[in-house]
Amino acid sequence: MTEQRPLILISNDDGITAPGLRVLVEEMSQIGEVIVVAPDKPQSAMGHAITVSLPLRLKRNFIFEGVEAYECSGTPADCVKLALDKVCKRRPDIMVSGINHGPNYSINVIYSGTMSAAVEAAVDGVQAIGFSLCDFSHEANFEYSRPHIKHIVETILKNPLPYGTLLNVNMPKTDQIKGLRICRQAGAKYAENFDERKDPSGNTYYWMTGKFINLDAEDNDTDLWAVENGFVSVVPTKFDLTSHGVMQHLKNIL
Amino acid sequence: MTEQRPLILISNDDGITAPGLRVLVEEMSQIGEVIVVAPDKPQSAMGHAITVSLPLRLKRNFIFEGVEAYECSGTPADCVKLALDKVCKRRPDIMVSGINHGPNYSINVIYSGTMSAAVEAAVDGVQAIGFSLCDFSHEANFEYSRPHIKHIVETILKNPLPYGTLLNVNMPKTDQIKGLRICRQAGAKYAENFDERKDPSGNTYYWMTGKFINLDAEDNDTDLWAVENGFVSVVPTKFDLTSHGVMQHLKNIL
Repeated sequence: MTEQRPLILISNDDGITAPGLRVLVEEMSQIGEVIVVAPDKPQSAMGHAITVSLPLRLKRNFIFEGVEAYECSGTPADCVKLALDKVCKRRPDIMVSGINHGPNYSINVIYSGTMSAAVEAAVDGVQAIGFSLCDFSHEANFEYSRPHIKHIVETILKNPLPYGTLLNVNMPKTDQIKGLRICRQAGAKYAENFDERKDPSGNTYYWMTGKFINLDAEDNDTDLWAVENGFVSVVPTKFDLTSHGVMQHLKNIL
Repeated sequence: MTEQRPLILISNDDGITAPGLRVLVEEMSQIGEVIVVAPDKPQSAMGHAITVSLPLRLKRNFIFEGVEAYECSGTPADCVKLALDKVCKRRPDIMVSGINHGPNYSINVIYSGTMSAAVEAAVDGVQAIGFSLCDFSHEANFEYSRPHIKHIVETILKNPLPYGTLLNVNMPKTDQIKGLRICRQAGAKYAENFDERKDPSGNTYYWMTGKFINLDAEDNDTDLWAVENGFVSVVPTKFDLTSHGVMQHLKNIL
C-alpha cells in the first residue's frame, strides 16, 4: 500500500508569474503534490476582497513544469474559493500563500492579499500559512528563506493547528537568518500623506503615500522586532476578531 | 464660550447614493458636525483593499443639504485614509460606517467594506463603529434602527473605546427590536458552489454563489443568535489578529 503524498494548494497576490511563487512551488513539490491557483495579474493590497458582481475566469497555465497550475481573473481570496470548490479533486492538506515580495508583518496583515488567501483557506478548515519576504524587489533573493519554509510546512503538516488559527510568516532580508521567533502582531499604523497632483486637464488627483509608524517599538516580542533583528517571525493569526477583553466594559456602558 | 460640536466622519461601501448612508447622515447631523467621504460607486465585499497603484479622485457632492460631502473613486478604506489626511480640518471625534444594506455579522466582517472603513479609522486612533441592517434590499426600512444608532454613537462619544477596539453593529430586519446585546463574532463559513457557465464564445466562466454555514448554531452569545432573535448585536472588534492562545503550542512544535 502506497501512502498518498500531501496535497498542497498554493496561491499568492503578486500574480502567477511572480518569482516568489515559483520558489514556493519548488519547495512544496519536494513535500507533496502541488496545485497552484493564482491571480493572473498582481493583486497586492487587495485585502480580503472577493468578486461577487463579476464572473471569474480560470485558465490552465503551464509555466511550472509537471505542476497543475491555473491563473484566475479574481482576487487572492477568489482564487482559494475557486480552487477549493472547482479545482482540487480532494481536500488539500495545507494551503500556502506567497512568497510575498514585501513584508506582511504588523498592521500590513489587514491589507494583505497574500494573507487573505491563507485566511480564506483557514476559514474553510484547511491548514494555512502565508509567507512573505521583507524585500519588495522583483529580483528579491529567496534562497535563505527556503529551509525555513520547508521546516514550517513540514511541522504544521505533522502538528495541525486548531480550527481558527493560521500562520503569518515574515522572513528578513538577510543571508544571516538567526532562527525562528513565535511573535505577536506589532501595533502599527500608517501616517498617510497623499501626494496631491494635477492631471493634464488641470483636475486634482491623489497618490497614496504614507509613513509606517511602529507603535510597539519598545517591545521585543513582536513580528516587527523579530525581522528587524534577523529572525523569521511566526505569528499565529486568527479571524475571530472579537475583542473579548472589552465585552464587560461594553455591557456596563451600553 | 461655545462648546464645539463633535466632528463625525461618515463613509460606507454601498456608495454615496445608498439610502442607508442618508439615514446615517440624518441621525449624525443631530449629534454633531458631519463630513461624508464615500465611494462614488458600490464597493461591497471589497474587504480591506486599498489603492496603491492608481491615482484617486475626490469630488465635492451636494446630495446632502447642508453637509460637507465628497465622493471618492477608491475603496472604503481609501475614503477614510483620504478623509483623515486631506478632508477633515480637525481630527474627527468618531467615524461611523454604513448603514450597510445587508449583514456584516460573523465571518462577513472579514469581507466587509463597511467594516474595513471603520477598521481603517480605528487603526488611526479614531473611535469607529460599523452599522449594518440585515436586509440587502435597496428599499430596506431603516426607521427602527435610528434610535439604536443614536444611542450607541452618543454612548461611545461619552465613553471612548480603548485603542485597538471598534464596534461591529448589526440590526435585525424587524419592527420589534428587543434591545441591544453585546456579543462575540459567530463562527461561520461559506460553502462555495460556483455556478459554471459558458459565455457566447463557448468559454467557461464562474459566478460565486455559496451557502452560509453557522458553526456556532448551539450558542446564544453570538452576533448571529442576537439578530436572529430580534436583538441589535454589538461586537467589540479588534485588528490585532494574534491568536495568543496558540503561541505556547507553536513554541513547543516549531
